[in-house]
Amino acid sequence: MSESNNPLSANFRIGFLGAGQLARMSALQAFRYGIQVGVFSDRPENEPVQFMTPYSSTGSFDSVDDMAVFAAKTNVLTLENEFISSDILQAVQDQSGVPIWPSPSSFSLIENKLVEKQTFENAGIPVTPYALIESEEDLQAFGERHGWPYLLKSSKGGYDGYGNETVDNAEEARQSFKNLGGTDGHDIIAEAFVDFTHELAVQVARNETGTQVYPCCQTVQQDHICVAVLSPAPVDPEIQNKAQQLAVQATEAIDGKGIFAYEFFLKKDGSLLLNESAPRPHNSGHYTIEGAVTSQFENHMRAVLGLPLGSTSLRAPAVAMINLLGTDRRDAQVDFVLNALEASDGHLHVYGKLDSRPGRKMGHYTLLGDNLDATYEKAGKLTAPIRI
Amino acid sequence: MSESNNPLSANFRIGFLGAGQLARMSALQAFRYGIQVGVFSDRPENEPVQFMTPYSSTGSFDSVDDMAVFAAKTNVLTLENEFISSDILQAVQDQSGVPIWPSPSSFSLIENKLVEKQTFENAGIPVTPYALIESEEDLQAFGERHGWPYLLKSSKGGYDGYGNETVDNAEEARQSFKNLGGTDGHDIIAEAFVDFTHELAVQVARNETGTQVYPCCQTVQQDHICVAVLSPAPVDPEIQNKAQQLAVQATEAIDGKGIFAYEFFLKKDGSLLLNESAPRPHNSGHYTIEGAVTSQFENHMRAVLGLPLGSTSLRAPAVAMINLLGTDRRDAQVDFVLNALEASDGHLHVYGKLDSRPGRKMGHYTLLGDNLDATYEKAGKLTAPIRI
Repeated sequence: MSESNNPLSANFRIGFLGAGQLARMSALQAFRYGIQVGVFSDRPENEPVQFMTPYSSTGSFDSVDDMAVFAAKTNVLTLENEFISSDILQAVQDQSGVPIWPSPSSFSLIENKLVEKQTFENAGIPVTPYALIESEEDLQAFGERHGWPYLLKSSKGGYDGYGNETVDNAEEARQSFKNLGGTDGHDIIAEAFVDFTHELAVQVARNETGTQVYPCCQTVQQDHICVAVLSPAPVDPEIQNKAQQLAVQATEAIDGKGIFAYEFFLKKDGSLLLNESAPRPHNSGHYTIEGAVTSQFENHMRAVLGLPLGSTSLRAPAVAMINLLGTDRRDAQVDFVLNALEASDGHLHVYGKLDSRPGRKMGHYTLLGDNLDATYEKAGKLTAPIRI
Repeated sequence: MSESNNPLSANFRIGFLGAGQLARMSALQAFRYGIQVGVFSDRPENEPVQFMTPYSSTGSFDSVDDMAVFAAKTNVLTLENEFISSDILQAVQDQSGVPIWPSPSSFSLIENKLVEKQTFENAGIPVTPYALIESEEDLQAFGERHGWPYLLKSSKGGYDGYGNETVDNAEEARQSFKNLGGTDGHDIIAEAFVDFTHELAVQVARNETGTQVYPCCQTVQQDHICVAVLSPAPVDPEIQNKAQQLAVQATEAIDGKGIFAYEFFLKKDGSLLLNESAPRPHNSGHYTIEGAVTSQFENHMRAVLGLPLGSTSLRAPAVAMINLLGTDRRDAQVDFVLNALEASDGHLHVYGKLDSRPGRKMGHYTLLGDNLDATYEKAGKLTAPIRI
């Protein structure tokens, strides 16, 4: 590793805690700056980023020692998931002397869904109605106040619908509370179902040099998994601006240094509720690789390295991103992709995972165009035949 | 490595013979397709691409065995330089059973400057006046016919002015002929100085699915090293088209599969002479990473993998690329780069070399804009303070 504080110097190395596609796409940008990449994974099998560097370590996300040893071989660390608790991150930073961005203290304000909602509420940002559930009475009371069904969520962990359960009545609520660990002392929160017209997302890059906010995009979800992203979101520009404002406000509320993503519900009355946040590159921002002047991954690297942030302007009037979810349980292989590759300004990304299974995020496809509806429709047609 | 012929399948691996910045930028595109990267280098020290993969081998470019052992761990091989002779490449391919693209037979038609000129001349492409030099009389005769000074070149190897000497008179010619190995039996060719107004370049991607040709760009040279590239070239569109036609014709003449670059002299009378060719990504095409819809590196990968080729359209009316040549002899480090990073649609690439020395290609900077003169001027101002 480098002896210099200049990230653009020989042997400067950034370490990723986590080895999935988000680390992978961030690493591609680190390489572009001549920066070396280390990766720490908690899985024994081959992870995609491990094929991209000779500096790969395996250990436990619960072990400060494991991660501190890894950290000592890097100049700076960053995250690609929310699986490590902030107190462990803080201890890794203290023990190794290697800075972690986003900081453990930023992370502590959002790692727990309850604290996250309080943090943003305190910053004046409207959030989905919620309550901490501590008893069966709380379960009943929340349903009576906000209506059935509603959502129960474990306050730590959980993504893409994991760790969440929808409950239709008090009996289901009691069962889910138990399933999610509520009776074992885990913090469980209830969240009201919001009657929304659109799910929106905004990415924000921020560091000591400034803040850059990406356009407001729409995320399209099926079975709690993002299947497509459209940018700019097909909603009133005032609503787009408001979502961008709230996203910047949220990033300031946690004094964020890095790249952050925020998901909003847009209600029929035009109001926005912050639903979720992520202190890392996010699926909703993959379209920025070709769709924006500076991708979320490049601004992730710039932010973490303390470099000036790049322009977030779109490269085309309309951008559609389609997630390529596993269609088969088999060794990974992409078939029937030729039309998608032939399309002008269509861009294929494959994550290099060795095994495919139905619903697993295996890659994505971004299409740039002049009209959002037409671009989304075309991207859908080009990717529909793909088996992966 | 993959058992499948589908390049988009688990563990598919492309091997690079050579480990410099061209392999590096190509590898970034292979990774984007989920493809693994192997690299074979003839240098013991750390090469930039060796930081980007766990699959790195060292050996001799003269050893069929060394390269065949490496090849056996890959699904397909490609080149990033012209340092390996076509008969050795053919033997590596035969011994390993792993295909090499561009093919050894394509390569055999251009690896030797004499054969290269004959190949293209036979295909009806005008080339710089030249002659094989076999004697002192030939040296004198060439000067009398084409004027002094002229160039002497060793017919194999040589790039960026290495292996070339300018000779002003018969005495210098005799000395250079000896310096270049002519008296030791190396083939030496003489090349007339061409009175040109512009040096132009065109990249062509070609494989079994079709051909894509990039815009005609201008290369700006100082001391035989490319310092800047401007695209599209500021010359009559008819001349641009002609250069593109000749480049495609040249690629067909060698039945090229891969990415190829051609450098032309534009004479005052508007005619073009083919000066040099390269069967690989080329410095003149680095601007395509952000400047074109599909970069030369992505089309390199697509061509070699047998995938459909992508659009070569420009993303902006004007693109300027500035080579960042080493300014100091020191551990590599980029200083005074903040203005360049802050500029909207300015894109920094650093090659990850550990040591800098004056004139060494350490990185490049690409700026997109609306007007070629203004964009070139701005890119020059943004990069002038950089020390690297």
